[in-house]
Order: sequence, then C-alpha cells, then structure tokens
Amino acid sequence: MIGGDGSSMVDGDTLLTRAATVVDIPRSLTGDGVRQLLDVIGDWVPGLQQVEVPTGTEVLDWTVPEEWNLRRATLTGPDGTVVADSARSPLEVVGYSVPVDTRLGLADLEDGHLHSLPDQPDLVPWRTSYYRRTWGFCIPDRVRRDLPEGDYHARVDATLEPGHLTWGELVVPGETTEEVLVTAHLCHPAMANDNASGLVVAAAVAEALAARPTRRRTHRFLFAPGTIGAVAWLATRPDVVSRVVGGVVISGVGDPGTSLTYKRSRRGSAPMDTAMRLALRDAEVEHTLVDYAPWGYDERQFNSLGYDLGVGLLNRTPHGTYPEYHTSADDLSFLRAAHLEESASLVLAGLDALEAHRPVRNLKPHGEPQLGPRGLWPSIGGATGRRAQMALLWVLAEADGERTVLDVADRAGLPVAEVMAAATQLAGTDLLEFGG
Amino acid sequence: MIGGDGSSMVDGDTLLTRAATVVDIPRSLTGDGVRQLLDVIGDWVPGLQQVEVPTGTEVLDWTVPEEWNLRRATLTGPDGTVVADSARSPLEVVGYSVPVDTRLGLADLEDGHLHSLPDQPDLVPWRTSYYRRTWGFCIPDRVRRDLPEGDYHARVDATLEPGHLTWGELVVPGETTEEVLVTAHLCHPAMANDNASGLVVAAAVAEALAARPTRRRTHRFLFAPGTIGAVAWLATRPDVVSRVVGGVVISGVGDPGTSLTYKRSRRGSAPMDTAMRLALRDAEVEHTLVDYAPWGYDERQFNSLGYDLGVGLLNRTPHGTYPEYHTSADDLSFLRAAHLEESASLVLAGLDALEAHRPVRNLKPHGEPQLGPRGLWPSIGGATGRRAQMALLWVLAEADGERTVLDVADRAGLPVAEVMAAATQLAGTDLLEFGG
Amino acid sequence: MIGGDGSSMVDGDTLLTRAATVVDIPRSLTGDGVRQLLDVIGDWVPGLQQVEVPTGTEVLDWTVPEEWNLRRATLTGPDGTVVADSARSPLEVVGYSVPVDTRLGLADLEDGHLHSLPDQPDLVPWRTSYYRRTWGFCIPDRVRRDLPEGDYHARVDATLEPGHLTWGELVVPGETTEEVLVTAHLCHPAMANDNASGLVVAAAVAEALAARPTRRRTHRFLFAPGTIGAVAWLATRPDVVSRVVGGVVISGVGDPGTSLTYKRSRRGSAPMDTAMRLALRDAEVEHTLVDYAPWGYDERQFNSLGYDLGVGLLNRTPHGTYPEYHTSADDLSFLRAAHLEESASLVLAGLDALEAHRPVRNLKPHGEPQLGPRGLWPSIGGATGRRAQMALLWVLAEADGERTVLDVADRAGLPVAEVMAAATQLAGTDLLEFGG
Repeated sequence: MIGGDGSSMVDGDTLLTRAATVVDIPRSLTGDGVRQLLDVIGDWVPGLQQVEVPTGTEVLDWTVPEEWNLRRATLTGPDGTVVADSARSPLEVVGYSVPVDTRLGLADLEDGHLHSLPDQPDLVPWRTSYYRRTWGFCIPDRVRRDLPEGDYHARVDATLEPGHLTWGELVVPGETTEEVLVTAHLCHPAMANDNASGLVVAAAVAEALAARPTRRRTHRFLFAPGTIGAVAWLATRPDVVSRVVGGVVISGVGDPGTSLTYKRSRRGSAPMDTAMRLALRDAEVEHTLVDYAPWGYDERQFNSLGYDLGVGLLNRTPHGTYPEYHTSADDLSFLRAAHLEESASLVLAGLDALEAHRPVRNLKPHGEPQLGPRGLWPSIGGATGRRAQMALLWVLAEADGERTVLDVADRAGLPVAEVMAAATQLAGTDLLEFGG
Repeated sequence: MIGGDGSSMVDGDTLLTRAATVVDIPRSLTGDGVRQLLDVIGDWVPGLQQVEVPTGTEVLDWTVPEEWNLRRATLTGPDGTVVADSARSPLEVVGYSVPVDTRLGLADLEDGHLHSLPDQPDLVPWRTSYYRRTWGFCIPDRVRRDLPEGDYHARVDATLEPGHLTWGELVVPGETTEEVLVTAHLCHPAMANDNASGLVVAAAVAEALAARPTRRRTHRFLFAPGTIGAVAWLATRPDVVSRVVGGVVISGVGDPGTSLTYKRSRRGSAPMDTAMRLALRDAEVEHTLVDYAPWGYDERQFNSLGYDLGVGLLNRTPHGTYPEYHTSADDLSFLRAAHLEESASLVLAGLDALEAHRPVRNLKPHGEPQLGPRGLWPSIGGATGRRAQMALLWVLAEADGERTVLDVADRAGLPVAEVMAAATQLAGTDLLEFGG
Repeated sequence: MIGGDGSSMVDGDTLLTRAATVVDIPRSLTGDGVRQLLDVIGDWVPGLQQVEVPTGTEVLDWTVPEEWNLRRATLTGPDGTVVADSARSPLEVVGYSVPVDTRLGLADLEDGHLHSLPDQPDLVPWRTSYYRRTWGFCIPDRVRRDLPEGDYHARVDATLEPGHLTWGELVVPGETTEEVLVTAHLCHPAMANDNASGLVVAAAVAEALAARPTRRRTHRFLFAPGTIGAVAWLATRPDVVSRVVGGVVISGVGDPGTSLTYKRSRRGSAPMDTAMRLALRDAEVEHTLVDYAPWGYDERQFNSLGYDLGVGLLNRTPHGTYPEYHTSADDLSFLRAAHLEESASLVLAGLDALEAHRPVRNLKPHGEPQLGPRGLWPSIGGATGRRAQMALLWVLAEADGERTVLDVADRAGLPVAEVMAAATQLAGTDLLEFGG
C-alpha cells in the first residue's frame, strides 16, 4: 500500500491482524489494560509516550477518576450456571463496576444490575458507569428472559482506587510548530470497529508520516480514553492547543460500509473540513459529508466553544446507526481489511491536503506574467492548454496573500496535489511566495 | 383549543361567530363604524384602548384625512330601480365618496362614477378614493351592461369633515420593555377574509397571551386602518418603535387555502422570520415561505427603510391571488373555522418561538461539562442519547453569547420548545446564562 | 435593428459583410496587417485612434516584441508542389516565423517545423511562436502523411525588426469620468468567429453608443492584439484603469451556437456580472452563465489580481469546445448574421444595465410616501397594482444609499429598464436621489 506521496503504508491485512491483536485486551477508561494496549501500539509506532495524570486531578469541568482494575467478574445462577463472566468477554460486566461479592435474589438483581437488548436478544450490550458508583452485568436478553428465581452470586473482583489516567501521545515533528491532531479513543473493550479500527488506522498514518523526509506541520497522535482523555489532554496542553490548526478523530473506519463519512467540525469550513472534503473528492471514493452535531466522539471536546479547534471525524457507517454498534456483534468479523486500508489512505490524503492550507501571494499580480521564459509554458501557442498549465494560472489568479493553495484547488476544481505542485513550481521563480 | 404552552385559546367556531359579528359593520379609514368595531373587539380583549388622532395631523409623509361618516348612498335608475345601495352592502358605494345629491345621464355616470368587474360580472368590487375627492358606486358588471339610458339619481348622504383617525391598541405587558407588534387592519367593510379573519385571530392571540402568567417581552396589538393607521402609529410612537424586536401582520387567514403563507420581512432573516419559520416547521403544518415584496399590507410601513422593524405577514392564500379578493364574494361563506383556529395557533407559536430569540452563553465553554452530577444526564453510558439530551448538548455547543436559543433550534433541527426547555434547565445550573 | 433604448444599430447582414471584409486581412500581434485592419474599423467607427508602443518597451512583466511583417511564406516539396503558402491562407505559416530561406530534408522539416491536426486531417491549424524564435508551416494532416522524402524548400520572406505594437482605441465620452471597457482582440488571421465576429460586434456597439444623446459613463473600446495588447494598454493607462467600473470582452459571438455564454469576472458578482446577467434575463434569450477561470481571452489580464477590474466575457459556444476553433474551418460559413446581431444587441443591453449600477437613496424613508399627490399613483384604490407601480415601490423599499438600481432590479425580479425608469421618475420628485 502506497500513500498519496509515494510513501509506503501498512497494508489492510496487516491492519486487520493488528486489530485482532488489540481488540480483546480488556480495558476501560483507566487501568492496566490501557497501559498494556499502549505498549502494543508503541510497538507499531516507536516513540509513543504514555502520559499519566493522577486520580483526583481537576481537568476542566472534570476530575480524573479512580483507576479501575478488574480481575474477574462473574454472575452465577441458583443452579451454579455462570450467567455472566468477564473472562468470557469484558462486555459482560458493566465498565467501572465497583467491587462486590454478594448473594441476592432475582428481583434485587433486576433492580438496576442487569443490562440486555430486548430488540437484539442474542447480543451482549456494552455498558459503563464511570461516574456513578454501581455494578452490573450485561447479558443476552434471551438469557435474561429465562433466568430462574433463586439465589444469585454476584462477584466483581476489581479495585477502584487512586491511580492514574493514561493516554498515548506521539509527536511527528514538522518544520513549523503548528500542529495537527489525529486521535482515536481506546477505551472500548472487545469492539472491533468501535474502536480497534481507529487505533490501527491512526497508528498506520503516524507510521507513514514519520517515514517521510519532510512535513511542514507537526502532527500529534493521541490514543486516549474517550471524553476524559480528551478533556485531560486539553486541560494539560494549553501551549499545544494554541498551535493547533485542525485535526481529525478516527473512529469506526473498518466496518462493511462502502462509503466513508466525514463529519465536519463545528465551524463547518475549517481548514481540516476543506482538506478532507477535497481529499475525498480527489480520491474519487464513495463518501458523504455531514454537518457537525455535538455528539459522537472526542470531536465534541475539541470543537467545544472554548477551543473550537476545527477537528472533524472520519468514520464509515456513522456511530449509532448500525445494529452492531456497542454490542458483542462488533467483533473482528465485522471488519474489512480493504476498508481499513482505504481509511488510512484517506486520512493521510486529508493531512496532505491540509498541508496545502498555506496562503500564497502572487508577486507579479499586474497582468499575467510570462510563463514561457521561466520554463513554465510551451512555446508554440494556439493549442488548448493542459491541466498542469491550468493549475499554474489558477494559482496566479487567486494568490492574493490570504487564499491558500487549498482554497485555489477548491475554486479551480483541480486536485490539491496538482495545485500544490504548481504553487511549489511557481515559488521556485520570482512569481510567488508562500506565506503563513 | 389549547395554545402551544397549554394556555387555552378561543376555538374556531367561536372565531367564526365573532367574524360574523364584525364583518358587516360598515366602516372605512375613519368614522363611527371604526369606533363601533373597536367596541366589539374591546369586548373580546378587555383593555383595548381607542386612540384618536385629529384630522389634519401631519404623520410622516401623510396628513390625517377628514372623518367620513356615511348615512346612506343610493343610485336610482330612470325607472326607479335601486341600482346601488349602501344599505344592501357597504361595498356598493366607493369608500370616502364625497356627499352628492344629483341627477345625471348614463354617460356622465359612466364617466368615472361606476365600478364593476367585467371578468367577474356577478360580483361587486371594493373601491375607495381616500385621497382624491370624488364619489362613485360599485355594481355587478352584469347589471352595468344593461343600464338603460335616462336620468339617474345619485345620492351620497355622508359627512366628510374634520374629526379623527381611530385605532385600537392593546398592550400585554411582559418582563421587559422590548416589544413585539401584532397587527391587523380593520378598514375593509363587508369582507370576511380580508379582513374580519385577521381581527378575530389577532384578538384571540391577544387573549391567550394575556391569560399567561409570564411573558418575557411586551406584546402590542394594533387594530388600525390600513396604511394611514400604521403610518400614524409609527409617527406618534417613536419611543415604542425603538423597542420593537419584530412582529407580524395578520391578514387573510380564514380562507379555504390549506397552506399557511408566511411572507418574510424585508430583512429576510429578522428574528420574527426565523421564529415563524421554525414555528411552522415544528407544527408540521402545510406552509409556504415567501420573500418580502413591498406590497401587501402594513408590513410595507413597518419594514420601510427608516424603520426596518423586521415585521412579517401571515396569511393563507396570498392577497390578490384568489378571485374573491376585494369583492363581494369574500363573505362569511369563504371562511373556515378550522383555518381561523389553526392560524391563531400558529401566530401564538410564532410569538412563543420569538421569545426564544435570546442569546445564551455557555459559562463552561472549555470541553463538555459533566451533565450527570448536575442531574442532566443518565448515569449508565453506552446507550444512544435521547432527544432531550441532544438539546442540552446543542445549547452548550452553540451558546457563544451571541447566538440565541432560536438560532440553536434552527441549527440543531430540534423543536424550539425543546431547545428552550434545555436552555432553561441549563440556566438553572452554573453552566449557562441568558443574555439580552 | 434597434437597440434597447430605441437607438438604431447595424443589422446582422451588415455585420456579416463587415466580417467578410476583415477576416482575410493577414495579421498577427504586430505589423502592417494590424494597421490595415484598424483602418477598416476606423471607417465604421469614426474617431478610432491607432496607438503605437515601440518595440522593446517594458510593459508589466512583458516586453513589446519586434514587429513582424510577412511578405510571403512558402514550403515547396521535392517535386515542386507547393505544400504551404501564406498567400493561400495566413494560417499556413506559423505566426511570427523568423525569416528563413533554406533547403532541408523531410526529417529536418518534421523536427519542429510542421504542424497539423491528426484528428482533423483536412483542416489547417493556427499556430504561433511569438516568444521563441523559430519558423514553421501549418498543413492538413492528410497532406503531411503523404509528404515524400526529398529536398524541401522552406522560405519565409518576412521582417522581424524593431517597430511598434499597435492597437485601436475609441472613447465614447459620458457625463462622468467613470469608464467601461469593451474589448475584442484582433490578432487572429483568417478566422471568422475567433475573432472577426468580436471586431464587428464591438464596433457596432460603439457606433450605437456614440449615436446616443447622453451616456452617464464613458465607454472605451479597445481593438488590440491578444495578451500583449491588453498588457501594454494596462501598463500605459494607469489613470484610466483607476476609473474603470467594469467591462466586457467580446469574442466568438457569431458561431451557430444558439446560446449566449457570459463568463463572469473573477470577482463573480462585479457590477458588470450583475448587469449582464440581468440583461440576458430581461432579453429572455437562451443563455448560460459560467464562472471565471483564468484562461480564455483578455479577461485574464483585466481580472488579474493587481487590477481586478470586474471584466466578463461574452461569447457563444465557449472557446476551445467547438471543433472549428483555431482552425481553417472557422471561416465565414461558420458565422450567422442573426447571431452577430443578437450578440451586439445583448452587449448593448448589458452596458445599458451597467448604467443602472448607481446607488439610490430614499429621501423619505419613514413609512411609504404618498405617491398619488406626486402624480405617481392611480387615485382609485382597491385594484391590484400594476408593474410600473411595483417598480416605484421596490425602489423606495431598497434605496438605502448603497444599493443600486441594478440591485433593486435584481431583488425585485423586474426588468432593469423598468426599474431605472421608476428611479428616474422618483428622482424627479423629493423622494429619491441618485448617488455615485
């Protein structure tokens, strides 16, 4: 697999294999599972740093919670049947369940400690209770319906104690201190599309970028627990935040949906929005652009009014609209290698397009300059111009010192890469300079 | 019939009965008929004040005309046939006809003193001559064609003398001095849709608003003669004008047309325009939005460049586009009780939506705040959010201190009432404040 | 043929005859052919001045080239066959070929000295080499394929020496010093649509304008060689450039395409763009509006960033999209008299509409003024208003001192001429004043 600029990128089969490696690591917002997962990602992208913030730290409107480490959670029925067991799947216990070891009747169990999906009776739902101290089990509704009366043994062997919130952070430095954020959340255990897919795609993009000789902007990759991770990162990185020009959240990019979906940032026409729109256009892949809404993934935090960082979301089938979402059916069989690969390729193309978000200024703006003597134009006139020449003319026609190469590509309807090539060619003469 | 907020409102049958009560009160721009009509409206909405401005008062570019009081106008043919008689219908005399008692031949009568509709030969048209002193009669064209030669007796027993211009004004006070205008013209005699319908609907809305415990803005209802009434009101109320945030003219709201038509103010996206657009959207009634044009009703005066008050027009079938318009066919049989009721309900909904035109400011704009601990969020995560939660998130996402609750409802595609409820809920915490 | 304001204009047959007169005058960027052509145009539009700039003058990024005068160019085959001959058609020699008198083999001839169109084997292409010193011949591809081996005699009997660049310039003065540019290029020999059509249409428009008693703006007509002519004009007329409010390039307006195509200026909504759009709308002719792109004709120079003059292009079938373009098939048989006439009429209509680009200010902006006493309104009310009255109301409703009559016509959806008539009528009272 080859990136848009010829840089090599991990192929789809490898991405699928990597997803298989991480999907079953039990994890939640915090805990050893998170660190174990980040160790694996660190093997793929050397240089990944694990950042830790202690329990109790105030971050924006939130407080870093206690660290949750689960050893085993089981729910055993009156006849000794194991109704739920975290060893079978981490989904079978409510995330962040408090430790418990108790016997109770079915009625008490049903009083808020069981979760199932009546409309999808064979699936186990994913449920958490991060901020209200309780415990519970998730089971197929078909099982729940047949639970007998009697004595149940609920056991959550876990610790919920002061510790740390942990995330992974990788900086791929560029020529400037302007930063681009690429993030994927890591806190959903046992679910392949949401979000092992985001982890492997983000890592592949990081790898490809790091392998390049030059990048203008610094790219920062975050692998963090949802919400609290983004919140803690924002709270602790005010210096970085002020340098962010845009970014993209990657989530749910491996499902069978053939269309990529880019959700615009809150601003709607932030540089990343234009970049991703043109990258998808230029790649001629099936795609949909949707407006911002304040739910979804960590774009909610990055686009909150006080930050407004212009961060979009790339996914395939939008979250919450496919039946496998947040259930045990979001397993490896739900992923497509080719879709992972295409997603990674498009994220990279979007970041490349974002690099073209640089203002250009025509230094000879009065009339068209002579291109022929500068080696930029064929000498025999009369024939219809070719596309590369059109790109040169468009750049000169629009380079007012404020518009960017990306803007020119948008108005001209020409591929970003071609317009960037033309701008670069012109910047090698006395006709154009890059700003910004 | 129940208003959007649960307040009771007069039902359609009552509105139709009321229309029947007022449609035949003979009246014009001025005179006893106007006062008689306002007395009736005052019975419906206690507190209605009759305001009078003397003849000769200069109001903007106009001068208050002499008061016209008609006792009887008849046109009698050579054989004694009564060709026209104001006692049969006030339409049969040209409004503001000067007193006359003369005998004349058919040719002289035809020289500007007869009006009919060749294309609608059975109908009597409505004609006036407010600002050129003349007299005339309106008759069916079928009658006109067969008028015999001979001696006619034209008699207009009327006074046209210094007096007053009269309008009705009702103030429904709110918490603030900002004002919303609701107006209907009253000067068209014997016509049910244009404009008994506007009078009864405006009065019903006034009644419903007055019955409420609280209103943020003050609402001012005007029942005034067309053009000169609005002009005189604007000229004599500079203090009120400066406090107007918008308004709506109500006219032609009872006809059989199933679609409500809202005509935008000149600005096109004034608060009232957004409010009415969303109210119609939320009510899921058949409707059409049309752009401003400088003809129609008194929105012409309120939207004139020097005022530009952002006042729209609500009607059903637009004026001038239905054959009954300004003829004797616009009688009670042309009204529909259900349409009067729906119209009143939608005006009220539009005014309610306008109350949501209040800026909101997120007081914790960095990241999303925790909603759970503030009692605004379910504690078990993982399930897809519900609409009420979406409204909370949208308000927080957009409340930059300039955007209003109405703007949020527009962008979010959520009902204004739900978004207002969410904003109110948030304003009860440390997360949001209302501005403006 | 009658212009929009009743001024007479040259008819289509005359335009076709004139095109026949000029199409075969051999010419290029410079030289006696240009002067000869301008002499003919000067016969049509008295007052046309020939402006000359000497070889070597630096104009913007360019330098005025040497003057090229061709006496005869022939290419003779081994058997004495005349393969190409400028006397047969000026297309058969590459424009600006350097003098040569040499014998060479077929291989050397094929090494850059022959031009043909493989896909259109019977046509002679048009080729030039203005800025690289070379020579060449243009022949049908069918001929080229059968050229025998042997000794060829290439002879270009031309001078390429210091001289002048020449253009024609005609000023039709108006009441103000604001200027409108109308231009057509003249440097394409032997091609009827591109661009004898532009020359005869521009001249006809100049003639019609000059015949009028009054014009508000000064109109300047340029008949100039492409690119270098516009560049030299811009470089030498800084005072005029600063007074230009817009303009139009006329090119390719006589072909069989039934739809006129207006290409917007770079700004996209410059006054000329609105004027031409409304003129085409009001004329109810088949037309297409296309966005600016930085190729085409001299609109490239006038719209370059440093000038940005808001100059559009009127043509029929866009250049480069019809097979006859820049070939020997673009001959007189390709022109339609009716199309030339309609094109001239629409250019004139566009210039008339541009005259309506004048701000208007309502001097009685509070409420609607009384129109009746000022003789602008019928005295009997009740009937639906007529279109002339609507124009009066629209002007008053929009005349905020910044919007122009053209803007009002656009918003109102009324013909520019009617709205201009209404504004003129209002400006004759105390209600309105023209600005700008």
